[in-house]
Amino acid sequence: MSHRVGSDVGIQETDITNTASLQCHSAPYIHKVGIPPKQNLLQEFTATVRETFFADDPLRQFKDQPRSRKFIIGIQSVFPILEWGRHYNLTKLKGDLIAGLTIASLCIPQDIGYAKLAKLDPQYGLYSSFVPPLIYAFMGSSRDIAIGPVAVVSLLLGTLLQNEIDPVKNSDEYRRLAFTATFFAGITQVTLGFFRLGFLIDFLSHAAVVGFMAGAAITIALQQLKGLLGINIFTKKTDIVSVMRSVWSTVDHGWNWQTIVIGVTFLAFLLLAKYIGKKNRKLFWVSAIAPLISVILSTFFVYITHANKDNVAIVGTIKKGVNPSSVKEIFFTGTYLAKGFKIGVVAGMIALTEAIAIGRTFATMKDYQIDGNKEMIALGTMNVVGSMTSCYVATGSFSRSAVNYMAGCQTAVSNIVMSCVVFLTLELITPLFKYTPNAILASIIISAVVGLIDIEAAILIWKIDKFDFVACMGAFFGVVFDSVEIGLLIAVSISFAKILLQVTRPRTAILGKLPRTTVYRNILQYPEATKVPGVLIVRVDSAIYFSNSNYIRERILRWLGDEEEYLKENNQPRIQYLIVEMSPVTDIDTSGIHALDELHKTFKKRDIQLVLANPGPAVIDKLHASKFTDVIGEDNIFLTVSDAVVTCAPKIEQA
Amino acid sequence: MSHRVGSDVGIQETDITNTASLQCHSAPYIHKVGIPPKQNLLQEFTATVRETFFADDPLRQFKDQPRSRKFIIGIQSVFPILEWGRHYNLTKLKGDLIAGLTIASLCIPQDIGYAKLAKLDPQYGLYSSFVPPLIYAFMGSSRDIAIGPVAVVSLLLGTLLQNEIDPVKNSDEYRRLAFTATFFAGITQVTLGFFRLGFLIDFLSHAAVVGFMAGAAITIALQQLKGLLGINIFTKKTDIVSVMRSVWSTVDHGWNWQTIVIGVTFLAFLLLAKYIGKKNRKLFWVSAIAPLISVILSTFFVYITHANKDNVAIVGTIKKGVNPSSVKEIFFTGTYLAKGFKIGVVAGMIALTEAIAIGRTFATMKDYQIDGNKEMIALGTMNVVGSMTSCYVATGSFSRSAVNYMAGCQTAVSNIVMSCVVFLTLELITPLFKYTPNAILASIIISAVVGLIDIEAAILIWKIDKFDFVACMGAFFGVVFDSVEIGLLIAVSISFAKILLQVTRPRTAILGKLPRTTVYRNILQYPEATKVPGVLIVRVDSAIYFSNSNYIRERILRWLGDEEEYLKENNQPRIQYLIVEMSPVTDIDTSGIHALDELHKTFKKRDIQLVLANPGPAVIDKLHASKFTDVIGEDNIFLTVSDAVVTCAPKIEQA
Repeated sequence: MSHRVGSDVGIQETDITNTASLQCHSAPYIHKVGIPPKQNLLQEFTATVRETFFADDPLRQFKDQPRSRKFIIGIQSVFPILEWGRHYNLTKLKGDLIAGLTIASLCIPQDIGYAKLAKLDPQYGLYSSFVPPLIYAFMGSSRDIAIGPVAVVSLLLGTLLQNEIDPVKNSDEYRRLAFTATFFAGITQVTLGFFRLGFLIDFLSHAAVVGFMAGAAITIALQQLKGLLGINIFTKKTDIVSVMRSVWSTVDHGWNWQTIVIGVTFLAFLLLAKYIGKKNRKLFWVSAIAPLISVILSTFFVYITHANKDNVAIVGTIKKGVNPSSVKEIFFTGTYLAKGFKIGVVAGMIALTEAIAIGRTFATMKDYQIDGNKEMIALGTMNVVGSMTSCYVATGSFSRSAVNYMAGCQTAVSNIVMSCVVFLTLELITPLFKYTPNAILASIIISAVVGLIDIEAAILIWKIDKFDFVACMGAFFGVVFDSVEIGLLIAVSISFAKILLQVTRPRTAILGKLPRTTVYRNILQYPEATKVPGVLIVRVDSAIYFSNSNYIRERILRWLGDEEEYLKENNQPRIQYLIVEMSPVTDIDTSGIHALDELHKTFKKRDIQLVLANPGPAVIDKLHASKFTDVIGEDNIFLTVSDAVVTCAPKIEQA
Repeated sequence: MSHRVGSDVGIQETDITNTASLQCHSAPYIHKVGIPPKQNLLQEFTATVRETFFADDPLRQFKDQPRSRKFIIGIQSVFPILEWGRHYNLTKLKGDLIAGLTIASLCIPQDIGYAKLAKLDPQYGLYSSFVPPLIYAFMGSSRDIAIGPVAVVSLLLGTLLQNEIDPVKNSDEYRRLAFTATFFAGITQVTLGFFRLGFLIDFLSHAAVVGFMAGAAITIALQQLKGLLGINIFTKKTDIVSVMRSVWSTVDHGWNWQTIVIGVTFLAFLLLAKYIGKKNRKLFWVSAIAPLISVILSTFFVYITHANKDNVAIVGTIKKGVNPSSVKEIFFTGTYLAKGFKIGVVAGMIALTEAIAIGRTFATMKDYQIDGNKEMIALGTMNVVGSMTSCYVATGSFSRSAVNYMAGCQTAVSNIVMSCVVFLTLELITPLFKYTPNAILASIIISAVVGLIDIEAAILIWKIDKFDFVACMGAFFGVVFDSVEIGLLIAVSISFAKILLQVTRPRTAILGKLPRTTVYRNILQYPEATKVPGVLIVRVDSAIYFSNSNYIRERILRWLGDEEEYLKENNQPRIQYLIVEMSPVTDIDTSGIHALDELHKTFKKRDIQLVLANPGPAVIDKLHASKFTDVIGEDNIFLTVSDAVVTCAPKIEQA
């Protein structure tokens, strides 16, 4: 008996001869392909929109709740601190306090250095470690991320901004454009989160990010040669060729040996501390406080030896006091509006990529969930507010987040602690940084960005996927030999090319029967699988869309041609049935149905029957809608390849 | 006994307890997942390049041939006429002669009209029907296509060119830019063909083309109102709003009633002839020669009534003689070079889309193969030569190719016949067209472009795929309400959006066991399928790449969450195994493996075992390379879902 699906769209019963011949072949139950219940247009549309934009079902917790509860949940979802804050206790505070103090000691020297990378005065780095972490602590959902300026975004921002305005000659306008870019970076982030477009950042592949980060690290390290070697005249370009030329051309009289001694000594110290922290995870605090110690020691050294009079460059006066308002400095009109917008969008996206990657990594380690879109709103809000309080783009820092995690942070309170320390620093001790040598900042930045070069990841990428490796190297060399923008462009282009390649050139395979089973598998993967005489079974490994329908049609014809040639040479019976295994074909569109139709017509002329096995819900639905099921005949559509073969093979024997 | 694959990469045998418990469950042979033979890097690279660019195996016939034979095949593959010419005979000539004369009678009036659409003098339309068809006949592989200027490309070219240069004030420079664009259109086509990038035109989806063509048809028809109503002052814009405003504002004193009478009468005649030809396929020649008859009758009528003195606009003098050389007119330097290049690329792509679609359609109908890339080289060469002989972009015409086919053409010789007739026309009878009223040309164009509006196709698209329908309507309204460029842009953007959506939001499904089988299928498609207690089976319907790995991870977690909630409410046993059916997962990259790894970690914390079923060759290879197989354990990877379930379910019973 043929088993029928309880569906309202009628399917023709296979004819009785078929069923009879099937029973001889001991396949007692032939299931027919099911047709999913019809949805009306609105339902279909809603389902698609829901899967696209609300895949994570963010409104789940609002379901079946009274209105007052909904309001509370709503507020809590914008400010997660209201939720976890209720369970906050002293034990957690202890962890957060230690972690907060540790990352503060790390961030203060880094901030000053990163501000220089962004071609801004040192205090703007500190400002950006004060306001944004506070905002994030109230709105963010990651417990481990450490917020503040980061090396890559600082470099990117500095590069893009100085293409527009000279940071030395027009420092005021330059700063204003930086705030404008920060404002739009925040707006971009909020917008992406609010419209649930967070998936856009997924288009920057992991491999591309690895390459980009490593390239940026090298570029940043090269930039530090200026500070480390005490060079005064230095190229504005960031590519390795220009920088090395700039370094060599000054080797005679441009280097400052006192600076080099200080810089290299402390760089060695910092790298050693890093190495110790890496070898023995319990000693991570050594690497965490090494930068602050270096700053204190070197500053004291310069102060007592008056080395600054020997042309050892020092930080100089850092403006005291907390963030002034910068609302009026943002360009809301004029030509710089568009430029700031463009730079902001790029910097905002990169900052997001970094923050979300960090958030996800640590969430997996501690097994809690991060809502990417909500996270974007938090990060965006923090940057918008930041842009109005003299901060530039802040995001999650890889190195500081790792330290935060290892120092035992429990919640975002560690960010509040760090923020308070930065506040005290700004209010009280900025004058103490006056004699800090720039070389120390350079050493600190170099030792920080070394961690961004992940050679192991690159090796793994090489092993797993060669195309990914090309993307990785493309981004890397793009950044190192040209600029961050070019590297980014290469990374995005290669990522897209990969997607396009995937959709235009899907895999196809010839299937054979595994001995003593009813399972049909790729004969290249399972050499023991055997072909069925008179039948060619092709599996198509992708949705059939306009972008690949012609290729799939041509590829199936080529499989058939190759097989027929082989059979002819070996005097074997000709192909009478071509079974297309449709399991992986998740969807089909009009072009795809055209392609199937053309295949059917071509086969008919050659007296070959096209047979489909296991079309999915969307596919069978569309085959019906287009009446293609009538064209090839309902009884040529089967639930499994095995069913199709047992039906077709007896016919071949009879013929 | 567990059956092992003869692979050099060792797979761990399932432990003996497992195998024993399996045997109780009557699954005598458990196949392990096969690992494809290792390829070295070069082989892998070659295979990928080959599938991407040489999917159709164009060099197949060169294989194992002596050198002299290879040379002959090479020449023949560039000039297919050398191959089919040898089998040419009188019967074929008869068919080609009739078809050639028929399409010539159709093309001459159309050419004059289309040249006007491209804002060029009438003779350039005729020139373009002389040289390009000749070249194509020698190089092309389609037997049914009719080459010459077409409505949509003429409109597109006219619109794009007049954005740069005024066709009335600077008619010389305008014409030169037209030749430049034609030259680069040809170069684009040759390049795409030579570098085997023909798949790029597949990115314009069928649905988008249907919408674009219909929109262009409406736009072209609207443009003809100028000629049909005898309006002198007419808008340069092509959108429906501007055109209708232009038409209504001239209703008082701008229309010419004599013109309207002639135009409308013949339009009615042409549409009637078209209708007759459509109803009765044997009478197709009625619609084919109706345009020529209209031209002859109306020209004679105007000549004897001197209607041109009543302001009935006439064609006027057409320059006699064949194509002059235009090599020196092409801009190879200056600012117009870049502009011509840009316009040429767009026009060339659109022309290709049309020609390839026609070629494929008729090739399927007569069951012969068209090599898309070779075809592009032929079309490109013909346009490059055309640009040097005063032709503008020519391509395959939908309407004339259909007539060609129905008139019984056998080979490209019908194009040669048509070309000869056009040659005679240019040499001898152009003066006769002097009194042809413009209104007739307008009528002919309207009746020709009506065929481009394919309402049935649009309805089918609506039925099959709503997203495709949006693309179709987007392109349509873009063209009608703005311009051809905007319509094209919308069509391409929506097509790309669809691809991106496909790769970011792949389908997933929960599988259940079909009663009395070992087949597991989507429970939404097969409501009779039952879930296995303690096991959740999720199928992922796409390659897992960076663009969707996060989504897939989150989606699987959501399926699990939903299921766990349901089980809790119903007091059923908790999930202990999560089986991911990987059959449709054709590939995975580093991000994808990361996602699996994160899933595995999360599950481990919840005491759930991740199990994989049927990973394909590329996937199992990469799982091994990344050592992920060791992480989840080789014995948690199965050949089929059924195998996985029979192994897992007993463990649940024991627990």
